[in-house]
Amino acid sequence: MLKKNIETFMGCDADYKEAKIVLYGAPYDCTTSFRPGTRFGPPAIRHESYGLELYSPYQGKELTDTPVFDSGDIELPFGGPEKALAAIERRAKGILADGKLPFLIGGEHLVTLGAVRAAVRKYPDLHILHFDAHADLRDDYLGQKLSHACVLRRCHELTGDGKIWQFGIRSGDKSEFDWGRTHVHTRLFDFEGLDEALFALRGKPVYLTCDLDVMDPSVFPGTGTPEPGGVTFDALRRALTAACTALDIVAADVNELSPHYDASGASTAVACKIVREMLIAL
Amino acid sequence: MLKKNIETFMGCDADYKEAKIVLYGAPYDCTTSFRPGTRFGPPAIRHESYGLELYSPYQGKELTDTPVFDSGDIELPFGGPEKALAAIERRAKGILADGKLPFLIGGEHLVTLGAVRAAVRKYPDLHILHFDAHADLRDDYLGQKLSHACVLRRCHELTGDGKIWQFGIRSGDKSEFDWGRTHVHTRLFDFEGLDEALFALRGKPVYLTCDLDVMDPSVFPGTGTPEPGGVTFDALRRALTAACTALDIVAADVNELSPHYDASGASTAVACKIVREMLIAL
Amino acid sequence: MLKKNIETFMGCDADYKEAKIVLYGAPYDCTTSFRPGTRFGPPAIRHESYGLELYSPYQGKELTDTPVFDSGDIELPFGGPEKALAAIERRAKGILADGKLPFLIGGEHLVTLGAVRAAVRKYPDLHILHFDAHADLRDDYLGQKLSHACVLRRCHELTGDGKIWQFGIRSGDKSEFDWGRTHVHTRLFDFEGLDEALFALRGKPVYLTCDLDVMDPSVFPGTGTPEPGGVTFDALRRALTAACTALDIVAADVNELSPHYDASGASTAVACKIVREMLIAL
Amino acid sequence: MLKKNIETFMGCDADYKEAKIVLYGAPYDCTTSFRPGTRFGPPAIRHESYGLELYSPYQGKELTDTPVFDSGDIELPFGGPEKALAAIERRAKGILADGKLPFLIGGEHLVTLGAVRAAVRKYPDLHILHFDAHADLRDDYLGQKLSHACVLRRCHELTGDGKIWQFGIRSGDKSEFDWGRTHVHTRLFDFEGLDEALFALRGKPVYLTCDLDVMDPSVFPGTGTPEPGGVTFDALRRALTAACTALDIVAADVNELSPHYDASGASTAVACKIVREMLIAL
Amino acid sequence: MLKKNIETFMGCDADYKEAKIVLYGAPYDCTTSFRPGTRFGPPAIRHESYGLELYSPYQGKELTDTPVFDSGDIELPFGGPEKALAAIERRAKGILADGKLPFLIGGEHLVTLGAVRAAVRKYPDLHILHFDAHADLRDDYLGQKLSHACVLRRCHELTGDGKIWQFGIRSGDKSEFDWGRTHVHTRLFDFEGLDEALFALRGKPVYLTCDLDVMDPSVFPGTGTPEPGGVTFDALRRALTAACTALDIVAADVNELSPHYDASGASTAVACKIVREMLIAL
Amino acid sequence: MLKKNIETFMGCDADYKEAKIVLYGAPYDCTTSFRPGTRFGPPAIRHESYGLELYSPYQGKELTDTPVFDSGDIELPFGGPEKALAAIERRAKGILADGKLPFLIGGEHLVTLGAVRAAVRKYPDLHILHFDAHADLRDDYLGQKLSHACVLRRCHELTGDGKIWQFGIRSGDKSEFDWGRTHVHTRLFDFEGLDEALFALRGKPVYLTCDLDVMDPSVFPGTGTPEPGGVTFDALRRALTAACTALDIVAADVNELSPHYDASGASTAVACKIVREMLIAL
Repeated sequence: MLKKNIETFMGCDADYKEAKIVLYGAPYDCTTSFRPGTRFGPPAIRHESYGLELYSPYQGKELTDTPVFDSGDIELPFGGPEKALAAIERRAKGILADGKLPFLIGGEHLVTLGAVRAAVRKYPDLHILHFDAHADLRDDYLGQKLSHACVLRRCHELTGDGKIWQFGIRSGDKSEFDWGRTHVHTRLFDFEGLDEALFALRGKPVYLTCDLDVMDPSVFPGTGTPEPGGVTFDALRRALTAACTALDIVAADVNELSPHYDASGASTAVACKIVREMLIAL
Repeated sequence: MLKKNIETFMGCDADYKEAKIVLYGAPYDCTTSFRPGTRFGPPAIRHESYGLELYSPYQGKELTDTPVFDSGDIELPFGGPEKALAAIERRAKGILADGKLPFLIGGEHLVTLGAVRAAVRKYPDLHILHFDAHADLRDDYLGQKLSHACVLRRCHELTGDGKIWQFGIRSGDKSEFDWGRTHVHTRLFDFEGLDEALFALRGKPVYLTCDLDVMDPSVFPGTGTPEPGGVTFDALRRALTAACTALDIVAADVNELSPHYDASGASTAVACKIVREMLIAL
Repeated sequence: MLKKNIETFMGCDADYKEAKIVLYGAPYDCTTSFRPGTRFGPPAIRHESYGLELYSPYQGKELTDTPVFDSGDIELPFGGPEKALAAIERRAKGILADGKLPFLIGGEHLVTLGAVRAAVRKYPDLHILHFDAHADLRDDYLGQKLSHACVLRRCHELTGDGKIWQFGIRSGDKSEFDWGRTHVHTRLFDFEGLDEALFALRGKPVYLTCDLDVMDPSVFPGTGTPEPGGVTFDALRRALTAACTALDIVAADVNELSPHYDASGASTAVACKIVREMLIAL
Repeated sequence: MLKKNIETFMGCDADYKEAKIVLYGAPYDCTTSFRPGTRFGPPAIRHESYGLELYSPYQGKELTDTPVFDSGDIELPFGGPEKALAAIERRAKGILADGKLPFLIGGEHLVTLGAVRAAVRKYPDLHILHFDAHADLRDDYLGQKLSHACVLRRCHELTGDGKIWQFGIRSGDKSEFDWGRTHVHTRLFDFEGLDEALFALRGKPVYLTCDLDVMDPSVFPGTGTPEPGGVTFDALRRALTAACTALDIVAADVNELSPHYDASGASTAVACKIVREMLIAL
Repeated sequence: MLKKNIETFMGCDADYKEAKIVLYGAPYDCTTSFRPGTRFGPPAIRHESYGLELYSPYQGKELTDTPVFDSGDIELPFGGPEKALAAIERRAKGILADGKLPFLIGGEHLVTLGAVRAAVRKYPDLHILHFDAHADLRDDYLGQKLSHACVLRRCHELTGDGKIWQFGIRSGDKSEFDWGRTHVHTRLFDFEGLDEALFALRGKPVYLTCDLDVMDPSVFPGTGTPEPGGVTFDALRRALTAACTALDIVAADVNELSPHYDASGASTAVACKIVREMLIAL
Repeated sequence: MLKKNIETFMGCDADYKEAKIVLYGAPYDCTTSFRPGTRFGPPAIRHESYGLELYSPYQGKELTDTPVFDSGDIELPFGGPEKALAAIERRAKGILADGKLPFLIGGEHLVTLGAVRAAVRKYPDLHILHFDAHADLRDDYLGQKLSHACVLRRCHELTGDGKIWQFGIRSGDKSEFDWGRTHVHTRLFDFEGLDEALFALRGKPVYLTCDLDVMDPSVFPGTGTPEPGGVTFDALRRALTAACTALDIVAADVNELSPHYDASGASTAVACKIVREMLIAL
């Protein structure tokens, strides 16, 4: 008898019960101010992962060495973000309750807030390691508090001062940088100082959030707000592997792939490989 | 002394005081469920209008025969639609108060609701002539009342039964068609029956709303939800000219151009020509 | 507990046992001589079907009125076509053995041969109704017998003279038309004569194969070999509905969507709607 | 011993001496005011012609029945158009001197002027049959006399009153239509009145110039200035075949394909088929 | 009362009188030999600048700290370049006469000549700092003296020997390099030797011209003639900031963005950020 | 008398007899498993080479200093690869027999096997220098022995152990790396160790095969299977020039350009420049 058409991220076909990590997608982009399209990110990553090998020559391991379950995309209501965030939080909460690591694929960066809400409830001392081109520290954006441009500011309200470490930041308005100086740890442009951060975060419960636009648009043009002057694929890969290996990551996400803006498919391939390397390292 | 860079729809450079018609854009697409991008419609129409002639061989008149003022795009807040609708309503209300015809360029179809709210306040007996591929008569869409898929249903709440005439409809769920049968006038697929509608609407204050996806995707692929089986450019042009000539149009809109989905620019050219023909005929 | 990510053609989520029709995809394009890419057709159709309504205003019915099961794409070996055809034949044979109608989504047109081999074994008196821009009647193509350009010639070897009816044909080399005159029924350019064919085929077991390039490239540019001068969407829709309603269709296919060649997505939307109308009519 | 890489329009490989028709390309677009790119037209047509059959089911003949020689593209200097026009005139003059029919592939429509200059020298009573969306009758365009928008006006200076017949025109400024009324024969929108024109032109030496944008952008989006409201492929094909068959065509051209604006390749396929049908009919 | 639609480069909304710098666009590309499209550069830069922040974390300043006026694009006649150059010269001359710095956005590189003509009249000892992939030192190109490929050669005729410093050059014919050795300072491939040049140019009136194709096509694919092997965004940004800070820049330009060749928008984002960094540093 | 349209790689117009190097194209991609399109590589390289200068500032030489003959593309049968490989082998054998260096432009990487078969017959001690992202050492791929993913494994069967040196490899399944360890020399990620390899290969007959996807997708997105983490253009250029200068190259190829996946044309420009640098260095 024939089976239904199942489409998962490459190699992520463990049974739910045995899985250590659970993938879930949040195809949401309604607060995107410049160019929408990250809603197409999760299916693109899943679909294009078939062009990728399971084996990582960087780590010398195979993706199938880690049992991962892909639970598919959440069906999200359109319009105002509160309902979407609640749905993301619910999914993350369920996965955490089952003792597994929730790995979210966005979607715009605002989706992180849903997952952080779930994680901070389980781990009140939650710290956040944040790789991004944008500080995302505004208090509001054109009057909206729940915006991709404010997501780390909202997270800060949950974690408190000194718990967020940002790397790669090269865009923001002046007030964000001013505010950030006394509330979060912000490193500009690249991963200088990452070792120090990893040392400081050791042993803490850490949420790892990676906005893929931290990479240079030459490497990753498929995103809504390309910011020239970013890091290379190898730099990001190394930083993520280092973090996943050294820290106690309790939840993670990768977001802001907008695949239609890169018809070559290279951006989607980059996202897939980043996800593979993270899954292997976690 | 040099002047600032002014960009208007071709030929629409009357002074505000003398203008009979006032263009305004609403680059909003946050409730779009399938493929966003209509936020790029108004600037694309304005920018590409320079490939067009002022003269219409169809009507034997020039666009500059009608004094039109282009007031640019409204800066709209992102996220939930209520604030955006309020801003659109304010702009339309001001134009109506000055005794001019507000001509709105969307954006997704939901923007119509803002303009209809303003029009119905001034003209309590407002009727609506609606050209579209989609009935847009759902009561809600995934729980959202304010969605592009519900916009005519919301308008119906303002106008009451029997005041909305729809043409070209070829997509909707069963419940929409069932509900519509007793509340609005729906004609499927094309403009058959338009003469009868124009006769019935004569002398009434009419809001004319044109979702450009009423055209076949071969003619107009640059839209979020292409629906095969639509009308030709000539059929739409004739229907619009007939309506603008025969009726007492008090406000109008053209919406749902998503220019990035048609890299050839043909869809934008179609939208520009439709706007030109309407402005000349009004 | 979470479920795996299942992706089917919209609304086709019947249980296999209850299903009357079973969808299966054959993402194969290795003999395509001009521009490859139909391998991306089946997932594109499945994925984009979410932009479509279940309800057909043409037929006044919903897709969910017919129980359909989507069995996903066959994993096909690359290179020479014989193994791929065998795999397609196996899938079709299994579905036929279970008393269901196999509905194949290509892929290049050669995939039809695999399904016809299975159908002709069960129904030795099999007739074929063929809608296409190309005659596909060559004996070989650059020395290859198993080529998309020869597929109806190969089918003829299984059915014999007078059993194949072709409509819409507007491209072929001279020898194809000469040969065809005495072996198959060929109607050029459109569906003139379809009533006569439906009358002749009534009561026979019929395989219905639809190469979507029978439509004009204005309607359906997303195909490997666009042939100007084709039929409209409405003409094809009507012809297919008429055939599905009037005849005893025992198997069917829709093929030659090459989605990357139409970035607007209109071609994929056309393919989805054609599949919906056929599934409802069958 | 190996041969150099020769690339001609499909099937046009007669020896120069035996050829009746000589193809030549003029990849020039420097006066294009809106969107350049027709310089890529001739190589695109030549290259994509391999997707086409030699046989025309419309005419029941093969392209190889007519001996045609493809002399490739002229290397044209950039910047001001006078040198480019002189080079085109030289090539056309040489072909005419050898008693062959020069068949020019543009480039922007201005290239026609070079060929008409050569033709009118050999045939002082030259008439012109002109298919186009645009009247191209301006006396100057932003001060330029040699512009694509003025090309028929310049031709009129060579032929005199009443010798130019235009069909399909649907764009121009008011002054063009006013001037045209007393100097040329202009038919709007389609080919109504073509029979009368063919009757009037019978026995005269006729230059046939076809701006492919006479077709609707749905059929032919790959052009610099898409003008909605045009004719179908079949209408153009029939009109051209009728003209080529009925008249004494002494030179011809096909122009304004801008292939990059239609990534689907459908526009190039349309251009190829139009050229094939013309070459067979001539 | 409503205002007309004004579109300026982000944040450049000073009054003309107070402005220190005046932006102006020259959307000209008629001598482009390979792939046209830089005419679309200035509006693309202006339009996409809204995706950018006003604040530069590199320089710790905001764009609004410098009063800049955007005077829009010059309406340029098509065809031969002499009239276009005269119009550019006029605009630059007027801005210089008002004691402001003219900042030109191209268009193809030839537009620089118009601005240099104006600048050299006011500053007879004008020096030129030139960043580019191409030497642009040909005496003529296919017989044309006024070509993008000859622009620095024409500038040399105005400045004389030893006043032009070129960096990043990696393409040219042999004769250009041979000629350049004795007339200009040419540094290949990157910015090695820039410090020495800045030292030599200190205190001189300097025209700064930046052909964006000096960057590698991975960073900046949106240009007519991509030349692999170029510099990174950061290298260019640093070199420009150093030059703008250290030198007495009297006029400047940025050119050769051809936005349609990079559908991702990354090239336009790069151009915007380069313009922002230069405006802040000047 | 006019000449036929000849299109060769820029500057490669020596007579066959005098040529030292003979170019030939193999537009084959039928075993490509992920995204086809390399069949369009050879004509794209030939066509776009006109945007390139003949002079290399890297080597200080002109392409025309080396007599090269471009013999065009082989007409290859579709479907199974054996016939295509035989045709490639025949062409390479003929060129080798005439004492010239065969320089193959692919096509997918499998085409290398045809050329290696010819080379190993003439040079039984043939060594292979292989630049690639992928190891291509599988014994079979989904049951196919003749697949792009197996090509170096097939070559190894002809050369034997220790004769193949691979650089840049960053993708493969675990079994490939395991097998490779004892049969070939594999260097991961970049060109570290190239000097040692050049030393070892000195004086041997060497086949040089360059899969362009060895470059990072930021530099070269136009390929079927983009693999993030690759080398820069300059790194590849230097490695190839070093190899061509130091070694006794008896045959060479460049493959895996899939030009449609990079609409900017940058990838094709990269391929052209790589070919130019190799031809000059050989």
